[in-house]
Amino acid sequence: MSLSNYQKKVDKWANQYKTPYWQPHEILARITEETGELARLINHIYGPKKKKSSEDEQELGEELSDIIFAVVCMANSHDINLDEAFDRVIDKAYGRDNERYEKK
Amino acid sequence: MSLSNYQKKVDKWANQYKTPYWQPHEILARITEETGELARLINHIYGPKKKKSSEDEQELGEELSDIIFAVVCMANSHDINLDEAFDRVIDKAYGRDNERYEKK
Amino acid sequence: MSLSNYQKKVDKWANQYKTPYWQPHEILARITEETGELARLINHIYGPKKKKSSEDEQELGEELSDIIFAVVCMANSHDINLDEAFDRVIDKAYGRDNERYEKK
Amino acid sequence: MSLSNYQKKVDKWANQYKTPYWQPHEILARITEETGELARLINHIYGPKKKKSSEDEQELGEELSDIIFAVVCMANSHDINLDEAFDRVIDKAYGRDNERYEKK
Repeated sequence: MSLSNYQKKVDKWANQYKTPYWQPHEILARITEETGELARLINHIYGPKKKKSSEDEQELGEELSDIIFAVVCMANSHDINLDEAFDRVIDKAYGRDNERYEKK
Repeated sequence: MSLSNYQKKVDKWANQYKTPYWQPHEILARITEETGELARLINHIYGPKKKKSSEDEQELGEELSDIIFAVVCMANSHDINLDEAFDRVIDKAYGRDNERYEKK
Repeated sequence: MSLSNYQKKVDKWANQYKTPYWQPHEILARITEETGELARLINHIYGPKKKKSSEDEQELGEELSDIIFAVVCMANSHDINLDEAFDRVIDKAYGRDNERYEKK
Repeated sequence: MSLSNYQKKVDKWANQYKTPYWQPHEILARITEETGELARLINHIYGPKKKKSSEDEQELGEELSDIIFAVVCMANSHDINLDEAFDRVIDKAYGRDNERYEKK
Protein backbone atom coordinates (compact mmCIF):
# COMPACT_ATOMS: atom_id res chain seq x y z
CA MET A 1 0.00 0.00 0.00
CA SER A 2 1.43 3.39 -0.96
CA LEU A 3 1.72 6.43 1.27
CA SER A 4 -1.10 7.88 -0.89
CA ASN A 5 -3.23 4.91 0.08
CA TYR A 6 -2.39 5.50 3.73
CA GLN A 7 -3.39 9.10 3.22
CA LYS A 8 -6.78 7.94 1.89
CA LYS A 9 -7.20 5.54 4.79
CA VAL A 10 -6.53 8.31 7.32
CA ASP A 11 -8.78 10.68 5.36
CA LYS A 12 -11.66 8.21 5.49
CA TRP A 13 -11.24 7.97 9.26
CA ALA A 14 -10.93 11.75 9.71
CA ASN A 15 -14.00 12.46 7.57
CA GLN A 16 -16.28 10.79 10.07
CA TYR A 17 -15.87 13.89 12.19
CA LYS A 18 -17.30 17.39 12.02
CA THR A 19 -13.78 18.84 12.01
CA PRO A 20 -11.75 16.24 10.12
CA TYR A 21 -8.39 17.93 10.69
CA TRP A 22 -7.06 20.19 13.43
CA GLN A 23 -5.33 23.50 12.82
CA PRO A 24 -1.69 23.27 11.60
CA HIS A 25 -0.22 24.36 14.94
CA GLU A 26 -2.39 21.80 16.73
CA ILE A 27 -1.23 18.97 14.44
CA LEU A 28 2.35 20.14 14.90
CA ALA A 29 1.88 19.96 18.68
CA ARG A 30 0.64 16.39 18.21
CA ILE A 31 3.73 15.49 16.18
CA THR A 32 5.86 17.03 18.98
CA GLU A 33 3.95 15.00 21.56
CA GLU A 34 4.43 11.76 19.60
CA THR A 35 8.14 12.51 19.11
CA GLY A 36 8.34 12.99 22.89
CA GLU A 37 6.77 9.58 23.46
CA LEU A 38 9.30 8.01 21.11
CA ALA A 39 12.07 9.78 23.08
CA ARG A 40 10.79 8.33 26.34
CA LEU A 41 10.71 4.84 24.83
CA ILE A 42 14.24 5.15 23.38
CA ASN A 43 15.56 6.25 26.79
CA HIS A 44 13.65 3.37 28.34
CA ILE A 45 15.17 0.77 25.98
CA TYR A 46 18.66 2.21 25.45
CA GLY A 47 19.03 4.80 28.18
CA PRO A 48 20.53 4.81 31.66
CA LYS A 49 18.52 1.85 32.90
CA LYS A 50 18.47 -0.29 29.73
CA LYS A 51 15.45 -2.48 30.44
CA LYS A 52 15.02 -4.54 27.29
CA SER A 53 11.74 -6.38 27.01
CA SER A 54 10.17 -8.60 24.39
CA GLU A 55 7.49 -6.00 23.68
CA ASP A 56 9.94 -3.24 22.84
CA GLU A 57 9.90 -3.85 19.12
CA GLN A 58 6.12 -3.85 18.89
CA GLU A 59 5.87 -0.72 21.02
CA LEU A 60 8.57 0.99 18.96
CA GLY A 61 6.69 0.17 15.75
CA GLU A 62 3.57 1.78 17.15
CA GLU A 63 5.32 4.92 18.38
CA LEU A 64 6.89 5.35 14.93
CA SER A 65 3.49 4.82 13.30
CA ASP A 66 1.87 7.36 15.65
CA ILE A 67 4.34 9.92 14.30
CA ILE A 68 3.58 8.92 10.69
CA PHE A 69 -0.18 9.12 11.44
CA ALA A 70 0.16 12.71 12.68
CA VAL A 71 2.43 13.58 9.72
CA VAL A 72 -0.18 12.15 7.33
CA CYS A 73 -2.87 14.32 8.98
CA MET A 74 -0.73 17.42 8.34
CA ALA A 75 -0.20 16.36 4.71
CA ASN A 76 -3.90 15.59 4.16
CA SER A 77 -5.04 18.91 5.59
CA HIS A 78 -2.81 20.60 2.99
CA ASP A 79 -3.60 18.34 0.00
CA ILE A 80 0.02 17.24 -0.13
CA ASN A 81 0.87 14.03 -2.02
CA LEU A 82 3.43 12.31 0.21
CA ASP A 83 4.52 9.80 -2.48
CA GLU A 84 5.77 12.66 -4.62
CA ALA A 85 7.33 14.53 -1.69
CA PHE A 86 9.02 11.38 -0.38
CA ASP A 87 10.47 10.66 -3.81
CA ARG A 88 12.02 14.13 -3.85
CA VAL A 89 13.58 13.42 -0.44
CA ILE A 90 15.00 10.08 -1.65
CA ASP A 91 16.43 11.88 -4.70
CA LYS A 92 17.98 14.47 -2.38
CA ALA A 93 19.57 11.65 -0.32
CA TYR A 94 21.11 10.19 -3.48
CA GLY A 95 22.16 13.61 -4.72
CA ARG A 96 23.44 16.31 -2.41
CA ASP A 97 23.95 14.07 0.60
CA ASN A 98 25.30 10.98 -1.11
CA GLU A 99 28.98 11.46 -0.25
CA ARG A 100 28.33 12.59 3.28
CA TYR A 101 29.27 9.28 4.94
CA GLU A 102 32.02 6.74 4.38
CA LYS A 103 31.06 4.20 1.73
CA LYS A 104 31.58 0.47 1.89
CA MET B 1 4.27 1.93 -3.21
CA SER B 2 3.82 0.56 0.31
CA LEU B 3 5.64 1.73 3.42
CA SER B 4 7.51 -1.59 3.21
CA ASN B 5 8.67 -0.61 -0.24
CA TYR B 6 9.80 2.75 1.08
CA GLN B 7 11.66 0.89 3.79
CA LYS B 8 13.45 -1.16 1.08
CA LYS B 9 14.25 1.98 -0.89
CA VAL B 10 15.79 3.65 2.17
CA ASP B 11 17.61 0.43 3.05
CA LYS B 12 19.17 0.27 -0.39
CA TRP B 13 20.41 3.83 0.04
CA ALA B 14 21.67 3.23 3.59
CA ASN B 15 23.51 0.05 2.61
CA GLN B 16 25.92 1.95 0.40
CA TYR B 17 27.59 3.06 3.63
CA LYS B 18 29.93 1.39 6.08
CA THR B 19 27.54 2.18 8.92
CA PRO B 20 24.11 1.97 7.27
CA TYR B 21 22.18 3.16 10.34
CA TRP B 22 23.09 5.40 13.24
CA GLN B 23 22.55 4.50 16.89
CA PRO B 24 18.93 4.75 18.14
CA HIS B 25 19.57 7.92 20.17
CA GLU B 26 21.24 9.51 17.15
CA ILE B 27 18.29 8.71 14.87
CA LEU B 28 15.94 10.04 17.56
CA ALA B 29 17.94 13.28 17.64
CA ARG B 30 17.51 13.50 13.87
CA ILE B 31 13.72 13.04 14.18
CA THR B 32 13.75 15.80 16.84
CA GLU B 33 15.77 18.04 14.52
CA GLU B 34 13.37 17.42 11.61
CA THR B 35 10.35 18.07 13.86
CA GLY B 36 12.01 21.34 14.83
CA GLU B 37 12.38 22.31 11.17
CA LEU B 38 8.69 21.59 10.62
CA ALA B 39 7.90 23.78 13.64
CA ARG B 40 9.90 26.66 12.19
CA LEU B 41 8.06 26.32 8.87
CA ILE B 42 4.61 26.19 10.52
CA ASN B 43 5.43 29.36 12.49
CA HIS B 44 6.67 30.90 9.28
CA ILE B 45 3.47 30.12 7.35
CA TYR B 46 0.85 30.45 10.11
CA GLY B 47 2.66 32.23 12.91
CA PRO B 48 2.97 35.84 14.02
CA LYS B 49 4.19 37.11 10.67
CA LYS B 50 2.10 34.93 8.34
CA LYS B 51 4.13 35.16 5.14
CA LYS B 52 2.38 32.82 2.73
CA SER B 53 4.31 31.95 -0.39
CA SER B 54 3.61 29.73 -3.38
CA GLU B 55 6.42 27.38 -2.34
CA ASP B 56 5.01 26.66 1.11
CA GLU B 57 3.17 23.51 0.08
CA GLN B 58 6.19 21.98 -1.61
CA GLU B 59 8.44 22.85 1.33
CA LEU B 60 5.90 21.48 3.79
CA GLY B 61 5.74 18.20 1.85
CA GLU B 62 9.49 17.88 2.06
CA GLU B 63 9.70 18.66 5.77
CA LEU B 64 7.03 16.02 6.42
CA SER B 65 8.92 13.53 4.25
CA ASP B 66 12.19 14.30 6.08
CA ILE B 67 10.46 13.21 9.28
CA ILE B 68 9.14 10.03 7.61
CA PHE B 69 12.63 9.32 6.23
CA ALA B 70 14.17 9.46 9.71
CA VAL B 71 11.29 7.40 11.13
CA VAL B 72 11.88 4.77 8.41
CA CYS B 73 15.60 4.66 9.36
CA MET B 74 14.65 3.92 12.98
CA ALA B 75 12.24 1.19 11.82
CA ASN B 76 14.78 -0.37 9.45
CA SER B 77 17.51 -0.48 12.07
CA HIS B 78 15.10 -2.50 14.24
CA ASP B 79 13.65 -4.76 11.52
CA ILE B 80 10.21 -3.29 12.12
CA ASN B 81 7.54 -3.72 9.42
CA LEU B 82 5.82 -0.33 9.29
CA ASP B 83 2.86 -1.60 7.23
CA GLU B 84 1.87 -3.91 10.07
CA ALA B 85 2.54 -1.32 12.76
CA PHE B 86 0.63 1.38 10.87
CA ASP B 87 -2.36 -0.95 10.47
CA ARG B 88 -2.43 -1.45 14.22
CA VAL B 89 -2.45 2.33 14.69
CA ILE B 90 -5.33 2.73 12.21
CA ASP B 91 -7.23 0.00 14.08
CA LYS B 92 -6.58 1.85 17.34
CA ALA B 93 -7.96 5.05 15.79
CA TYR B 94 -11.15 3.21 14.80
CA GLY B 95 -11.34 1.47 18.15
CA ARG B 96 -10.43 3.21 21.37
CA ASP B 97 -10.32 6.71 19.96
CA ASN B 98 -13.28 6.58 17.59
CA GLU B 99 -15.77 8.49 19.77
CA ARG B 100 -13.26 11.06 20.91
CA TYR B 101 -14.47 13.84 18.58
CA GLU B 102 -17.89 15.04 17.48
CA LYS B 103 -19.16 13.12 14.47
CA LYS B 104 -20.80 14.54 11.40
CA MET C 1 18.12 32.90 43.04
CA SER C 2 20.22 32.94 39.90
CA LEU C 3 20.34 30.29 37.22
CA SER C 4 23.80 29.46 38.59
CA ASN C 5 22.21 28.82 41.95
CA TYR C 6 19.63 26.58 40.31
CA GLN C 7 22.50 24.77 38.66
CA LYS C 8 24.08 24.20 42.06
CA LYS C 9 20.77 23.00 43.51
CA VAL C 10 20.36 20.46 40.68
CA ASP C 11 24.01 19.45 41.00
CA LYS C 12 23.57 18.74 44.71
CA TRP C 13 20.61 16.50 43.90
CA ALA C 14 22.41 14.77 41.00
CA ASN C 15 25.53 14.11 43.08
CA GLN C 16 23.65 11.77 45.39
CA TYR C 17 23.85 9.23 42.57
CA LYS C 18 26.58 6.99 41.22
CA THR C 19 26.04 8.45 37.76
CA PRO C 20 25.08 12.05 38.45
CA TYR C 21 24.37 12.93 34.80
CA TRP C 22 23.23 10.87 31.82
CA GLN C 23 24.94 10.88 28.44
CA PRO C 24 24.26 13.95 26.25
CA HIS C 25 21.95 12.06 23.87
CA GLU C 26 20.03 10.68 26.82
CA ILE C 27 19.53 14.14 28.35
CA LEU C 28 18.51 15.43 24.93
CA ALA C 29 15.91 12.65 24.71
CA ARG C 30 14.61 13.78 28.11
CA ILE C 31 14.30 17.39 26.90
CA THR C 32 12.42 16.07 23.84
CA GLU C 33 10.13 14.05 26.10
CA GLU C 34 9.42 17.05 28.33
CA THR C 35 8.77 19.26 25.29
CA GLY C 36 6.30 16.59 24.14
CA GLU C 37 4.50 16.74 27.47
CA LEU C 38 4.25 20.51 27.18
CA ALA C 39 2.83 20.05 23.66
CA ARG C 40 0.15 17.68 24.96
CA LEU C 41 -0.81 20.18 27.68
CA ILE C 42 -0.97 23.12 25.24
CA ASN C 43 -3.25 21.09 22.94
CA HIS C 44 -5.30 20.15 25.98
CA ILE C 45 -5.76 23.77 27.09
CA TYR C 46 -5.88 25.59 23.74
CA GLY C 47 -6.42 22.81 21.20
CA PRO C 48 -9.45 21.30 19.51
CA LYS C 49 -11.28 20.53 22.73
CA LYS C 50 -10.29 23.58 24.79
CA LYS C 51 -10.90 22.28 28.30
CA LYS C 52 -9.74 25.05 30.60
CA SER C 53 -9.36 24.09 34.24
CA SER C 54 -8.21 25.93 37.33
CA GLU C 55 -5.13 23.71 37.58
CA ASP C 56 -3.84 24.55 34.10
CA GLU C 57 -1.56 27.33 35.22
CA GLN C 58 0.08 25.26 37.94
CA GLU C 59 0.51 22.31 35.58
CA LEU C 60 1.93 24.57 32.87
CA GLY C 61 4.46 26.01 35.35
CA GLU C 62 5.62 22.51 36.21
CA GLU C 63 5.92 21.36 32.60
CA LEU C 64 8.00 24.45 31.82
CA SER C 65 10.16 23.80 34.88
CA ASP C 66 10.62 20.15 33.87
CA ILE C 67 12.14 21.42 30.61
CA ILE C 68 14.40 23.86 32.49
CA PHE C 69 15.44 21.06 34.86
CA ALA C 70 16.57 18.86 31.95
CA VAL C 71 18.26 21.84 30.29
CA VAL C 72 20.13 22.55 33.55
CA CYS C 73 21.30 18.90 33.66
CA MET C 74 22.74 19.27 30.15
CA ALA C 75 24.48 22.52 31.17
CA ASN C 76 25.86 21.03 34.40
CA SER C 77 27.25 17.96 32.68
CA HIS C 78 29.22 20.32 30.41
CA ASP C 79 30.28 22.87 33.07
CA ILE C 80 28.34 25.58 31.29
CA ASN C 81 27.46 28.76 33.21
CA LEU C 82 23.87 29.48 32.19
CA ASP C 83 23.86 33.02 33.59
CA GLU C 84 26.58 34.00 31.15
CA ALA C 85 24.99 32.12 28.24
CA PHE C 86 21.55 33.58 28.96
CA ASP C 87 22.98 37.09 29.05
CA ARG C 88 24.45 36.54 25.59
CA VAL C 89 21.02 35.43 24.36
CA ILE C 90 19.36 38.53 25.85
CA ASP C 91 22.02 40.69 24.17
CA LYS C 92 21.31 38.91 20.87
CA ALA C 93 17.58 39.65 21.30
CA TYR C 94 18.36 43.35 21.79
CA GLY C 95 20.85 43.36 18.94
CA ARG C 96 20.29 41.36 15.78
CA ASP C 97 16.64 40.60 16.41
CA ASN C 98 15.51 43.89 17.86
CA GLU C 99 13.74 45.27 14.78
CA ARG C 100 12.17 41.97 13.83
CA TYR C 101 8.69 42.82 15.12
CA GLU C 102 6.52 45.91 15.01
CA LYS C 103 7.25 48.24 17.90
CA LYS C 104 4.74 50.04 20.06
CA MET D 1 19.81 36.79 39.28
CA SER D 2 16.69 34.71 39.90
CA LEU D 3 14.47 33.16 37.26
CA SER D 4 11.92 35.83 38.24
CA ASN D 5 14.51 38.45 37.38
CA TYR D 6 15.12 36.76 34.04
CA GLN D 7 11.39 36.81 33.50
CA LYS D 8 11.38 40.59 34.12
CA LYS D 9 14.34 41.05 31.77
CA VAL D 10 12.55 39.15 28.99
CA ASP D 11 9.33 41.02 29.74
CA LYS D 12 11.06 44.36 29.37
CA TRP D 13 12.39 43.26 25.98
CA ALA D 14 9.01 41.86 24.87
CA ASN D 15 7.13 44.97 25.91
CA GLN D 16 8.87 47.07 23.29
CA TYR D 17 6.60 45.39 20.77
CA LYS D 18 2.97 45.83 19.82
CA THR D 19 2.36 42.13 20.46
CA PRO D 20 4.73 41.31 23.31
CA TYR D 21 4.00 37.57 23.33
CA TRP D 22 2.91 35.15 20.62
CA GLN D 23 0.01 32.73 20.96
CA PRO D 24 0.69 29.63 23.13
CA HIS D 25 0.87 27.26 20.13
CA GLU D 26 3.30 29.63 18.42
CA ILE D 27 5.59 29.79 21.46
CA LEU D 28 5.37 26.00 21.73
CA ALA D 29 6.45 25.72 18.09
CA ARG D 30 9.42 27.95 18.94
CA ILE D 31 10.39 25.70 21.86
CA THR D 32 10.14 22.72 19.47
CA GLU D 33 12.32 24.53 16.94
CA GLU D 34 14.95 25.36 19.58
CA THR D 35 14.91 21.77 20.88
CA GLY D 36 15.50 20.68 17.27
CA GLU D 37 18.52 22.97 17.02
CA LEU D 38 19.91 21.50 20.22
CA ALA D 39 19.38 18.01 18.75
CA ARG D 40 21.32 18.96 15.62
CA LEU D 41 24.19 20.27 17.75
CA ILE D 42 24.28 17.17 19.99
CA ASN D 43 24.43 14.95 16.89
CA HIS D 44 27.14 17.21 15.54
CA ILE D 45 29.28 16.98 18.69
CA TYR D 46 28.53 13.41 19.82
CA GLY D 47 26.91 11.78 16.82
CA PRO D 48 28.13 9.65 13.93
CA LYS D 49 30.79 12.11 12.82
CA LYS D 50 31.97 13.42 16.21
CA LYS D 51 33.54 16.72 15.21
CA LYS D 52 34.57 18.34 18.46
CA SER D 53 35.53 21.99 18.25
CA SER D 54 36.57 24.57 20.78
CA GLU D 55 33.37 26.53 20.21
CA ASP D 56 31.06 23.64 21.09
CA GLU D 57 30.66 24.61 24.72
CA GLN D 58 29.77 28.21 23.95
CA GLU D 59 27.34 27.14 21.23
CA LEU D 60 25.77 24.56 23.53
CA GLY D 61 25.27 27.20 26.22
CA GLU D 62 23.47 29.42 23.75
CA GLU D 63 21.23 26.66 22.40
CA LEU D 64 20.24 25.77 25.97
CA SER D 65 19.58 29.45 26.73
CA ASP D 66 17.47 29.79 23.57
CA ILE D 67 15.23 27.05 24.95
CA ILE D 68 15.05 28.77 28.35
CA PHE D 69 14.25 32.09 26.61
CA ALA D 70 11.27 30.55 24.81
CA VAL D 71 10.16 28.78 27.99
CA VAL D 72 10.32 32.11 29.86
CA CYS D 73 8.14 33.70 27.14
CA MET D 74 5.51 30.99 27.66
CA ALA D 75 5.66 31.53 31.45
CA ASN D 76 5.43 35.32 31.14
CA SER D 77 2.45 35.19 28.81
CA HIS D 78 0.64 33.16 31.50
CA ASP D 79 1.81 35.13 34.57
CA ILE D 80 3.60 32.07 35.89
CA ASN D 81 6.29 32.53 38.56
CA LEU D 82 9.05 30.15 37.48
CA ASP D 83 10.92 30.34 40.80
CA GLU D 84 7.93 28.82 42.57
CA ALA D 85 7.30 26.24 39.84
CA PHE D 86 10.97 25.25 39.71
CA ASP D 87 11.05 24.76 43.46
CA ARG D 88 8.11 22.36 43.19
CA VAL D 89 10.02 20.41 40.54
CA ILE D 90 13.14 20.23 42.75
CA ASP D 91 10.94 19.01 45.62
CA LYS D 92 9.46 16.38 43.31
CA ALA D 93 12.99 15.24 42.38
CA TYR D 94 13.86 14.84 46.06
CA GLY D 95 10.54 13.18 46.82
CA ARG D 96 8.92 10.76 44.41
CA ASP D 97 11.95 10.28 42.18
CA ASN D 98 14.70 10.20 44.78
CA GLU D 99 15.25 6.44 44.84
CA ARG D 100 14.97 6.02 41.10
CA TYR D 101 18.73 5.69 40.48
CA GLU D 102 21.55 3.93 42.27
CA LYS D 103 23.05 6.08 45.03
CA LYS D 104 26.70 6.59 45.79
